[in-house]
Formats: sequence, C-alpha cells, structure tokens
Amino acid sequence: MGIRLGELVERFGGELIGDPATEVVGIAPLTDAGVSHISFLSNSKFRAQAGQSRAAALILSPHDADLVGQTYAGARIVTKNPYAYFARAAQYFEALTAFVPPAGVHPTAFVDDTAQVDPTAHIGPKAVVEAGAVIGAHAVIGAGCYVGREAVVGERTQFFANVTFHARCVIGARGILHSGAVIGTDGFGFANEGGVYIKIPQTGRVVIGDDVDIGANTTVDRGALADTVIEDGVKLDNQIQIGHNCHIGAHTAMAGCVGVAGSAKIGKYCTFGGAAMVLGHLTIGDHVHISSGSMVSRSITEPGQYTGFYPLAKNSDWEKSAAIVRNLPTMREKVRALEKTIKTNTNQEDES
Amino acid sequence: MGIRLGELVERFGGELIGDPATEVVGIAPLTDAGVSHISFLSNSKFRAQAGQSRAAALILSPHDADLVGQTYAGARIVTKNPYAYFARAAQYFEALTAFVPPAGVHPTAFVDDTAQVDPTAHIGPKAVVEAGAVIGAHAVIGAGCYVGREAVVGERTQFFANVTFHARCVIGARGILHSGAVIGTDGFGFANEGGVYIKIPQTGRVVIGDDVDIGANTTVDRGALADTVIEDGVKLDNQIQIGHNCHIGAHTAMAGCVGVAGSAKIGKYCTFGGAAMVLGHLTIGDHVHISSGSMVSRSITEPGQYTGFYPLAKNSDWEKSAAIVRNLPTMREKVRALEKTIKTNTNQEDES
Amino acid sequence: MGIRLGELVERFGGELIGDPATEVVGIAPLTDAGVSHISFLSNSKFRAQAGQSRAAALILSPHDADLVGQTYAGARIVTKNPYAYFARAAQYFEALTAFVPPAGVHPTAFVDDTAQVDPTAHIGPKAVVEAGAVIGAHAVIGAGCYVGREAVVGERTQFFANVTFHARCVIGARGILHSGAVIGTDGFGFANEGGVYIKIPQTGRVVIGDDVDIGANTTVDRGALADTVIEDGVKLDNQIQIGHNCHIGAHTAMAGCVGVAGSAKIGKYCTFGGAAMVLGHLTIGDHVHISSGSMVSRSITEPGQYTGFYPLAKNSDWEKSAAIVRNLPTMREKVRALEKTIKTNTNQEDES
Repeated sequence: MGIRLGELVERFGGELIGDPATEVVGIAPLTDAGVSHISFLSNSKFRAQAGQSRAAALILSPHDADLVGQTYAGARIVTKNPYAYFARAAQYFEALTAFVPPAGVHPTAFVDDTAQVDPTAHIGPKAVVEAGAVIGAHAVIGAGCYVGREAVVGERTQFFANVTFHARCVIGARGILHSGAVIGTDGFGFANEGGVYIKIPQTGRVVIGDDVDIGANTTVDRGALADTVIEDGVKLDNQIQIGHNCHIGAHTAMAGCVGVAGSAKIGKYCTFGGAAMVLGHLTIGDHVHISSGSMVSRSITEPGQYTGFYPLAKNSDWEKSAAIVRNLPTMREKVRALEKTIKTNTNQEDES
Repeated sequence: MGIRLGELVERFGGELIGDPATEVVGIAPLTDAGVSHISFLSNSKFRAQAGQSRAAALILSPHDADLVGQTYAGARIVTKNPYAYFARAAQYFEALTAFVPPAGVHPTAFVDDTAQVDPTAHIGPKAVVEAGAVIGAHAVIGAGCYVGREAVVGERTQFFANVTFHARCVIGARGILHSGAVIGTDGFGFANEGGVYIKIPQTGRVVIGDDVDIGANTTVDRGALADTVIEDGVKLDNQIQIGHNCHIGAHTAMAGCVGVAGSAKIGKYCTFGGAAMVLGHLTIGDHVHISSGSMVSRSITEPGQYTGFYPLAKNSDWEKSAAIVRNLPTMREKVRALEKTIKTNTNQEDES
Repeated sequence: MGIRLGELVERFGGELIGDPATEVVGIAPLTDAGVSHISFLSNSKFRAQAGQSRAAALILSPHDADLVGQTYAGARIVTKNPYAYFARAAQYFEALTAFVPPAGVHPTAFVDDTAQVDPTAHIGPKAVVEAGAVIGAHAVIGAGCYVGREAVVGERTQFFANVTFHARCVIGARGILHSGAVIGTDGFGFANEGGVYIKIPQTGRVVIGDDVDIGANTTVDRGALADTVIEDGVKLDNQIQIGHNCHIGAHTAMAGCVGVAGSAKIGKYCTFGGAAMVLGHLTIGDHVHISSGSMVSRSITEPGQYTGFYPLAKNSDWEKSAAIVRNLPTMREKVRALEKTIKTNTNQEDES
C-alpha cells in the first residue's frame, strides 16, 4: 500500500536524490516520521531537525537540500515548494485508504423523476434531489443533503452530509461543500414603509466556479436580481456569511466566522483572517489582506495588509485605556490648549 | 403573463399618469429595464438616468415625477414610497412564475399520527413532524425540516429545507424560516460548583409573532423558565444568535452575524448592523440603531445611532496606533504633567 | 407528581429546617413561586424578597438562612451553593414530565448493518447511522442526525435533531449536542502554490470527553494529522467555531459566537464571553477569562480577566474618537514636542 520514490517524482515532479526503488507507506511531519515515511521541510528554521530525521525520504527546497544533506543520509526530493509537494503527496496517501461512496442512489434517498443524476454520482441516504436538478459525473451528494429544483452540481464535486443547495444555484467541478452549508437562501432585502419591512423577492442565483471549498455552516445568499458569484479556487472556512450579490474573486481565502455584507465586490488572491467583516457595497481590490477581527468600512484599492481591532489587555488596563479612548477629543483639546499656551508664552518671552 | 398598469394601481395604489391599458411583464432596475418593463426611482440622485429610461413605466415620488416627466415620455405611477411600491410589485411578478409546493404530505415525510396538519399545508420530502404539532393552512414545511412535539406553525408560514423547530415553540402567520435555522434549542444556563458546570433545565419556549423572517443558520434559544419572545415583523438575517429569554420588539431588524446574549430586552424599530453584539440582561429602547461590528455593553434608552469598532488602517499604522492605545494612561499622565508645568511656569512669570 | 422535602435532601444533600413530609411539586424563582413550590436564594441582595416569599420551602446559604428565617416561616434547605442545588432540583422536576425518546430504531431511520446500536439507545426518524458506528446505552440520536462511519457515541449522550457527527469522531458519556452542530468536518488547511490553494487532507479526528455540551450550529473541525480534543465538562454555546487541532481544557465554557483558530491550546476552567476570538497556535493557560468581543492575539499564561473591544458611543462621538485613534501617532509627536519645548524653555529660564 506504499509508493516507490521513483513513482512519486513521476507523478508530482521534483528531483530525486537517492534510490528510486525506495518505498514509503505514508507522509508524516518531521517530529513523527519513522523509517517507512516520507517527510518534508517547508520552513528552514527546522533544518537541524530535518538533518536528524529518521524518515526514509525528505521533500526539501533546493536551498535546504544541500545543507540538510550534510547530516541526513536518506533520500531527498528537491522541489521549489515543498509544502505544496507535501499537500499533493498527502492527498495521494489519503486516497489509498479513504472510503469512496459508491455510485448510485441510496434506496432511502428521494430523487425526483425529472432530475438528471449521472450514473457515476453518489446520492446518500435520506438525501433529496428536486425536479430538474443536474448532478455531474462522480459527484457525491451526502446523507441528508438537499439539492433544489434545477440546481446544477459539477463533476467530482462533493457535498458532505446535510448540505442545503437551493433551486437554480450552480457549482462547478471538484468543489467541496461541508456539512451545514446553506447556499442560495434569500438575501436580506426589504423596503421600509412606516417602520414596517416589505420583502423584496430574491430571484438571482448563487453561481460558484470550479475548485471552490465552502466550510461547515457557511451561508451564501442568492442575488436579489443579478447573481451572487464565487469565482474559481475560492476557499471559505466555516460559519462565514456572504450576502446577496457579492462577488468573490478567484483564489481568495477567508478564515472562519468572516462576514461579507451584500453587494461587496472582493478581488482575487485576497485573504481574510477569522471574524473579519466587510460592509456592503464596498470594493476590495486584488491581493488585499485583512487581519482577523477587523471591520472593513471603506473600499480598499491598494494591495497590502490591513488591520483594525482593539488590542487585548488585562481588564483593569483595558478599562483605563477605553475610558480615555472615549474621551480622546478632550485630550486633543488639552494638547491644543497647551500648544497655544506654549506658543503665547514663547512669543511673550521673545517680545519681552 | 404581464399586468396592465390600471390593474397595478388598483392593487397597490398610486396615481397613474399614462395609459392604464399599457401592459408590463416584469420589473427591473433603471439600468436593466427594457420597453416591456416597469422600473422605479427610489433615490433622486438617479433622476437623470430615469429621465432617459426605456421602461414602459416608472414608479416615482411626487417630487421626482414632474422633473423626470420633462424628458421621460412613458407612463408614471406616482406614490410616496416608490421603493415599497417596487417591493410589492416585484412580489406580484415573482408570484406569477414561482414554484408553489403542492398541498399535502410528501410520501417520504414522517408525520406523527397525533400531529394536526392542515390539508392545504405542504410537508416536504424527508421532513419530520412530531406528536401533537400543529401546522396551519397553506404553511410550507420544506424538505428535511424537523418540527418538534406540540410545536405550532401559523398559516402561510414557510420553512425552507432543513429547518429545526423544537418542541412547544410557536410561530405566527406569514413567517419565513430559512434553511439551517434552529429555533428552541436549550439556552446556555449552568450553575457552577467547584469549577464544574451543572445544567439548568431550559423549560421555556420560543414564541414568535406574525410576519417574522429568520435567516439561514440563525439560532434562537428557548427560555430557561419564561419564554424567549420575538414580536411581529422582526427580520433576522443569517447566522444570528439570540440567547434565552431575550425579547425582541416588533419591526426590529438585524443584519448577519449579530449576537444577542441571554435576557437582553430590545425595543421596537431598532436596527443592528452586521456582527453587532449585545451583552446579556441589557435593555435597549425603541428606535436604537447599532452600527456593524459594535459591542453593546450597557443599556441604551435614548434613540439614535451608536457605534464602537476600531478603525481599519494599514497594518503598520494600526500597530503604531494600537501600541499607543494600550499606553493611553501614560500619555494622559504626560499631558497632565505638562499642564501642571505650564501652570507653574505661568504663575511664576506672573509673580515675577 | 411532587417530592417530599425529606426525599429531596436525601437525594441532593443540605440541611433541612422544617417538616420533611412537606411536599413540593415544582421549583420556581422567588418572584413566581407559589405555596406548592420550592424556591431559592442565590444572591443575597434579594434577601428581603426571600423573607416575604410564599414558597413552601427555600434553598439558602447558611449565611442567608438565619436572616431570611426571621421573617420567612416556610421550610429551609441550607446548603453552601444554593444555585447548584437549584440546578439539580430543577433537573429532578424536569425529568418528572420530560418526554423520553423510546429505545429502538425508528422505522424511517437508516442504520447500516455493521453499526452497533445499543438496544436501549434511540435512533430518531430519518436519522442515518453509517457503517461501523457505535451508539452507546441510552444514547439518543435525534431525527435527521447523521453519524458517520466508525464514529463512537458514549452512553446517555444525546444528539438533538439534525446534528452531523462525522466519521471516526468520538464523544464520551452524558454529552449533549444541539441541533445543527457539525463535528468533524475537514479543517481549513491548504498549501499555496503560485496563489492557488492545494488541499491538505485532514485525517485526524475530533475526540470529545464526558459531560460535554455543544450548542446549536457550532462547528468543530477534525485535526489535520493529530486530533482535535475537547476535554471533560467543556460547555460550548451556539455558533462557535473550533479550528483543527485545537485542544480545549476540561470545564472551560464559551458563550455564543466564539471563534478559536486552528491549533490553539486552551487551558482548564477558562471562560470566553460571546464573540471572543482566539488566533491560531496560541496557548491560553488555566483560569483565563476573556471578555465578550475581545480578540486574543497573543498567548496568555497568567490567570485573570482580559478585555479588548472598542467602547460604544453615540455615532458622532465615535467618529471623533476614532479619527483621533487613527492619528494617535501624531498626537504623541505633539506631546513629545511640547515636552521638549517646555524643557528647553524651563532650562532657558533657569539659565537666565
């Protein structure tokens, strides 16, 4: 159930220094790797540890490969991005033992007669697939999932148990939706008349590209008229809220508990730390990085890292600093008064 | 499948300037509306755009109607609140094509023999309705929903797929519960004995009025002894948490990711921006508006807008300002020392 | 359906002052308790109210018992922790009338032939229990729940409706998982290669101890390689996110909407207020208490209360203070310049 190093470099590239016939049965971090494992060094500060590794082989950068090789006698796979190599190798090893849901519709699922389910797809126990829905090749719809009318699920996309994917929404290939995710619920749109809210119908869709992962209990609202769009390669962690008509650019990643209000337009290759929040109708450019716990209250065009959260302190210290924050205008007045007094005094002295 | 303008004003009011026989097939925003559409102007700053609209008819305020009419030749419906008129008209057009779940219990649903389901109600695939529950006329219980023992669902209330509505909870008429919403879970109540938590039974209910919308994955805890109450017309967005024994006043609206801790009492006609938080046992009066990302840590009686979040900045600028925030007591001391020195110096000069 | 006071103290301890034959039918707060109830005084500031209580009996601390007894003629149960006593008594009364789900598998559930379900356990309508899963004695798996392959559920643990508990995860005895909770979804782990994310398989588990409560729509990710661990007695409220490889120490409690990023290690007996956030890879010691809305961005070893949120103000006041916060480095420069000028002036005067 292992793989020879020669086959590994054939599949995933890299330069092998060592015996291609050496077989490894799994991948493990430096601290845990034993003599039948391959391990990896993605951070040069653990170079000394790598030099002492018991692993049969190591994945390293060109820079580290020589230095580690001075003390490490095992095989080396040299590649520019050892961490990405590790990810691919780990996927390979995981697939060796992972349970693959069988093709076909579980007898306890309900699939409407007009839905089109590819014969290679899996529909799990108690799942519901409504009229006109289309489920692609090798797609997996987990137990208890709901796929609404005319929704489209691309090939090899996987829904874990208890996902809700509403009518007419679309997701491309190789996506992963985690349990409790809700895609395509109505956006939060109302007209107010004399204090009372009147619902505005939400008739757009959610359109999701290829290779998109959406975390557990994350919610993405359908658009009001136009669609909510999530481009290729976006990765959303758990408990994220994406409002109606948002547009999330390709390969942007958001950590848990992020909230994005309606009609925000977010660029490509952005990152959002946990619990960051974005107000509605803002535009965030490409390569913008928002720190955890920060509230984005204006559009951002310039790439870079942005932050805004109150620093943590012992409660008694926070109470003092927060009281002053509340009265900062007073302190500014005092500083201005001091500046004025000093200036007057100095002038008087000059005149005297 | 359209509607004549004459019929539209009969249904929804407003003064029609133009031919009542003109038929429109849909409603669209100014930018998209074509010759068979009706559109609307709710914000006067787009008046010039409205003046050039291709739409067959426009919904406008009295003030805008005349000005727009100078260049716009189509029909006009004049009303005090064009946005509310738009919402109602959009509901009308949506209903023309919307799928209406059929009356009756889906063969794959489970409904306890002692539950009372109105014959006009819809119970979707794989839904569960427990003993003694009551489902009103034209109510819709979506696929995979759970309705607990003796729960009551009012007429025309709709649960989208995968809603959980626990035992003995009550919701009135015309409500909407979105997927993943959980109503009536136990509140977070414990006694602590030597560091160990002992659960306090949560035996109250959640009681929800008419015309209440609750968003996807929003949670509302049942009361400990008394009930958690949500009054008529409240609108809750996605991923909101309402603690046990809270009371939310009529026509209050909360955006996504808001959290309200237990026993908070919130007035009528309030609004809460996304991710705003309210501590437990506080009282918030009517017409209070809390900005996004703000923590409400004290009761508020005076109507108005309240805010409290750290302003976003480039990370390097934030680091500088945050470091000073942490040391504000020191800066205040320095300002006080300066004031004292100045005063002393000035006095000395006066005396000299 | 009541209980005699004598039996109550036999079960739960405490010293009874009064007639052991007195029967009470329920427990109620001081404000509501009638002549057939027992009530309790856990906060001495309500002592006068207790002295006037109509309740048949009161649970009090030794300190309060005598003082209240001066005006109160009913029976008294004296105990060191009246609130904990109340919790236990309330559990007793609740059990008298609570619905107990019957042993056995509901005919509409799906249980794989290789799953081991104890004959005293309850599997609710439409629930799914996958291959190799183990469900302990008197466990309750609610309607629509999903229990993954080889997952283990300890005795007397209860899953409310629509819980998702993934493959190979483990929970001990007497736990409660509330509706919408998702345990064991993949952690958020990716390698980045040229801006594109490559998934790192998440092959660890979630391992949960005894007496753990997990709130509605709370999510706990499985570990990447090692396990995510939640120790005995932990209480998690609703809508909490726990990242992969976190370790939560025994008897720690977290209020709603808390987020803990991956690999954070949190001690025992900690508390987290609502919406507190913890960054990844931090270590928090025992007995650390984090206030609501606070962002923990560094490790904490010293016990105590920590806080960090921007104080709420009227929006116009916040705008002023926030503008100054943004420019605090400028204010600090001004203060420094003033100090320098004063010093120079003073020196000049001294010299003159």
